[in-house]
Amino acid sequence: MSAFADAGPALAGRLADVLKVDVPSVTAQTERFVYREISEAGLAKAVVALSGGIDSAVVCAMCALAMGPDNVVAVMLPYKSSSESSRTDARLMIERLGVQSAEVEITPMVDSFASMRPAAGALRMGNVMARCRMIVAYDFSAEVGGLVVGTSNRTETLLGYGTIFGDDAWAINPVDGLYKTQIRQIAVELDIPESILAKPPSADLWVGQEDEEDLGVSYEDVDKILYLLHDERRPPDEVKAMGLPAELIDGIVARVAKNAFKSVPAPVAELEL
Amino acid sequence: MSAFADAGPALAGRLADVLKVDVPSVTAQTERFVYREISEAGLAKAVVALSGGIDSAVVCAMCALAMGPDNVVAVMLPYKSSSESSRTDARLMIERLGVQSAEVEITPMVDSFASMRPAAGALRMGNVMARCRMIVAYDFSAEVGGLVVGTSNRTETLLGYGTIFGDDAWAINPVDGLYKTQIRQIAVELDIPESILAKPPSADLWVGQEDEEDLGVSYEDVDKILYLLHDERRPPDEVKAMGLPAELIDGIVARVAKNAFKSVPAPVAELEL
Repeated sequence: MSAFADAGPALAGRLADVLKVDVPSVTAQTERFVYREISEAGLAKAVVALSGGIDSAVVCAMCALAMGPDNVVAVMLPYKSSSESSRTDARLMIERLGVQSAEVEITPMVDSFASMRPAAGALRMGNVMARCRMIVAYDFSAEVGGLVVGTSNRTETLLGYGTIFGDDAWAINPVDGLYKTQIRQIAVELDIPESILAKPPSADLWVGQEDEEDLGVSYEDVDKILYLLHDERRPPDEVKAMGLPAELIDGIVARVAKNAFKSVPAPVAELEL
Repeated sequence: MSAFADAGPALAGRLADVLKVDVPSVTAQTERFVYREISEAGLAKAVVALSGGIDSAVVCAMCALAMGPDNVVAVMLPYKSSSESSRTDARLMIERLGVQSAEVEITPMVDSFASMRPAAGALRMGNVMARCRMIVAYDFSAEVGGLVVGTSNRTETLLGYGTIFGDDAWAINPVDGLYKTQIRQIAVELDIPESILAKPPSADLWVGQEDEEDLGVSYEDVDKILYLLHDERRPPDEVKAMGLPAELIDGIVARVAKNAFKSVPAPVAELEL
């Protein structure tokens, strides 16, 4: 059931409208951004870690538009528990875009870690996987002379739903300002395969993991709530008074606060010498 | 030979004076900083990756002063090529400070990577090692409920002499504002073992690697030059006109410019939606 059930269709409709993106304009802007940043770094290639999910598919397509497919290296970094459909979907994107590609299993690195740190549970191992992927992606960028292009979106960044120095580690990011549901709209117009559009979003951290189940709310709803809180800067109480579930709003506000450290520069001592 | 040979002793002496630190004042400030940041994060422990070198020894000592030795976890993260003296020195620090400790070999992770990416040379492998150390240190911070305390100093940060998402990855950093030679002064007064004070600085990236050889200049000299360029904000031409070798100044300026991206937030597309 939608969190907007009690708030009524007018509010949900208004927010759906403001979250609608002008896809040709946005892709033209991301194209210029990616090209300019890579060129200004004195480099020529974009490296994208392709997971088989929608965000990395869209970023890879944006990079192919910006740099030409020959200058994009799509790196698949599966772990042994990664679903076969993720791999199939990633390969489908690579074929469709005609980009360069490589596949490196992170399993040996991750399992070496696990053998030394056997008490690490699913969450800690999820962070290790994301960071091992960062290591391999950055090594590709060093090898080919490129920048690692990030795929974290605004929803994930606000919620802190990513691994610092893992999937949150990138040289440039064209989609950081876009909510998840806005990336979906772009995906449809960029001709991303139906199998990628249709599957439930997952960080692929363990078998069967689904973002919306973890978060306890659909991206459709959470994007609208984040828009009210962060773009319209409405106090949480005002958002609750609109008819949205108080517990959900409190949960989102707490999550944003708890993870805010991931988006700001780490503190350094300001010493008087 | 010192880069200041032609500039004369007056300039070198003046810079040595301004780089002199009031150690009790600085350690009082770093103590407050570390305690405040860890407490404000709702945590109680400091995690420090202890290499056997001077910077991590000083940071570990600062953390022990701030949090009490029981609340400091010193993590030794040797690779198979790490020198035996590094390990011995790290263990000596741990004993002297009475902090908690752990040792995890990064060799299996690093060698798993190397077997998948056999063409990676010494520089790329050095980055992989630094990042594997980050993974293990961060896992300890998750396990014990602490913050990873960074050890990068101002000299390294300005020169970009560190691995982004590797040794440059930390939650807080008490020594980011201190030049390498200032950390040495603190080390002497904090009773850091003579074997740590005496050895040539090394990032321990390969056998026999020495920072000053890599950089082509002593820390003594480079700190003074960085101070002229960055604290006194003198244009490079003015610094050369003081009698300092033009090639060396140009090399330092180029290195700082090339690595500046490591110290600023990574660019994101500012989209008009």
